[in-house]
Amino acid sequence: MSACGCAHGAVDVHTHFVPSDLPACPGESARRHWPTMQPAAQCGHKHVMIDGRNFRTVSAQCWDAELRLSDMQKMGVRHQVVSPMPELLSYWMQPADARALLRSVNEQIAEFVRARPDAFTGLCAVPLQDVDLAVEELDYAMGKLGLAGVEIGTNIGGVPIGHPSLEPFFSAAARLGAAVFVHPIRPAGADRLVGPPVLEQAVAFPGETGLAAVSAMTGDLLGRHPGLRLGFSHGGGTLAALLPRLRHARRAFPVLAQAVTQDPYDYARRFFYDTLVYDRSTLARLIELFGASQLMLGTDYPFAIMEHEPLVRLDELGAAADVLRALRRDNALRFIGRTAS
Amino acid sequence: MSACGCAHGAVDVHTHFVPSDLPACPGESARRHWPTMQPAAQCGHKHVMIDGRNFRTVSAQCWDAELRLSDMQKMGVRHQVVSPMPELLSYWMQPADARALLRSVNEQIAEFVRARPDAFTGLCAVPLQDVDLAVEELDYAMGKLGLAGVEIGTNIGGVPIGHPSLEPFFSAAARLGAAVFVHPIRPAGADRLVGPPVLEQAVAFPGETGLAAVSAMTGDLLGRHPGLRLGFSHGGGTLAALLPRLRHARRAFPVLAQAVTQDPYDYARRFFYDTLVYDRSTLARLIELFGASQLMLGTDYPFAIMEHEPLVRLDELGAAADVLRALRRDNALRFIGRTAS
Repeated sequence: MSACGCAHGAVDVHTHFVPSDLPACPGESARRHWPTMQPAAQCGHKHVMIDGRNFRTVSAQCWDAELRLSDMQKMGVRHQVVSPMPELLSYWMQPADARALLRSVNEQIAEFVRARPDAFTGLCAVPLQDVDLAVEELDYAMGKLGLAGVEIGTNIGGVPIGHPSLEPFFSAAARLGAAVFVHPIRPAGADRLVGPPVLEQAVAFPGETGLAAVSAMTGDLLGRHPGLRLGFSHGGGTLAALLPRLRHARRAFPVLAQAVTQDPYDYARRFFYDTLVYDRSTLARLIELFGASQLMLGTDYPFAIMEHEPLVRLDELGAAADVLRALRRDNALRFIGRTAS
Repeated sequence: MSACGCAHGAVDVHTHFVPSDLPACPGESARRHWPTMQPAAQCGHKHVMIDGRNFRTVSAQCWDAELRLSDMQKMGVRHQVVSPMPELLSYWMQPADARALLRSVNEQIAEFVRARPDAFTGLCAVPLQDVDLAVEELDYAMGKLGLAGVEIGTNIGGVPIGHPSLEPFFSAAARLGAAVFVHPIRPAGADRLVGPPVLEQAVAFPGETGLAAVSAMTGDLLGRHPGLRLGFSHGGGTLAALLPRLRHARRAFPVLAQAVTQDPYDYARRFFYDTLVYDRSTLARLIELFGASQLMLGTDYPFAIMEHEPLVRLDELGAAADVLRALRRDNALRFIGRTAS
């Protein structure tokens, strides 16, 4: 049996955590953007208030282990990788303020995980708008708090993750053996939508993630850090759709072949991805393109857009038993740095 | 034999035109952004100069019918749909200045097409930053110049094509029976790239087109104009990758189900797309999702990123003869408003 007690159960790498309470705003500089938790009318729910608006009403599943465990049992999930709700990443705050908030979030995640290490693994968040502070916080969260890695946004104030300015962070992540889970935030194309605000997560998120994955490729993160474990949410978003044109463009434009030294398809097979694409044939296509060793069960639990029956989705694939086990569990264990038994 | 003489040959819906010369800048307000053609060192080439920089060095194929016809023969293409190089769309100019430029471009395309109507069909460009002027120019280009429709950008100064402000234009396009070819321009996500500028067309274009197609859906262009023929370049970009998540989100968020009244997959099967995805399995997937009746051969001729052997790409599909004929020719004829024989 593996260290995390999930020898036979599924591991869900894409679940989110919101603390039941957040620290008070530390001062004037943090007033803008500082989130607070307020009781909601619906029993057990709270509003995440930001800048005087209700960013999202969240359920107690966000912080209550018993509720989560009960849901996990219904979903057939034995182990969850728990990362902060992305809006908490706070890249838009002053670095010191963001660190104060994230330290509290990281400690609450660590406490949550520590009570049931068989059921939960935690990822931290770090203030990437200040790369030195981010490295410090990653060191602390992994070394002192025992978290397995870090959730990062696809961009930091518009700077994509493949940008050279973030190099010290990825260097630290590689050195520490962090699982780096990349989640869309403040997506490119949010201004190209016509309709309700929820379209931002529904249709702008995948494109944002696809571009982030391309930036990791063109910025050659894995060339510098071959052991770095980068996992992209939502099946890599649109990445798969970008690969054929990028491959062709490398042949058409010598300058691009010089900048991107490896075939994009080969590069893509070195990233991890969750399975959260809500469609059998799309998932089958990702497995074909990225490899059955790179996809990991993910659900977006406990948010409204979550996949409620993730194992049904996997079973629909009609895949061989070893492939299914890899998708359900083993790839995720590799990603979080625990060897599958 | 069909009116355009392409009874048995392939029709390429995605080819571009640049006039060999452009009119002189009409005044001070137009100085910024006004393009001029300058001789290049390489024989038969010209630089498209914009704001003192060489935007692109283009070959005489852009304006020379004999060169095009010779290339078409080699490529197995009998008929080209010719649209302006997207950078000429000029949505970033003062409306009157843009109209002056586009009038010249449209007249030159009309003249080019008129000499060989068996080989060429033309699409105009219109100054969509002023929707009334755009309608006037579309009327002129189709009524007086005999063009078959219009190339439009995916966004107009950041406004996506599904935005209600563009309604008078789409109303006119539907009334006139225009083929509306949607091409990416000034893509969302251009600031998410790490590497040479050519990445903009290599990887930001598809996402931009995918979002534009979604905006046409959520803005319900086809609900208001059921007969409108909208064709998306590059196989619709990332649209196919966005559909499963959008479908799921409609179920998860009632507000989205109200805003998007039709299943996104069904809606997507009402658009046209070109085949320009550079990959057999990706193209096969698009045919499966969008329907064999909606895909039309496209190459991006004569630009560097073009598909040089488009018929080989179609043949690779191993499709039935009637499907192949639809992809090679019949769907394109339907799109440009000429009934396939």
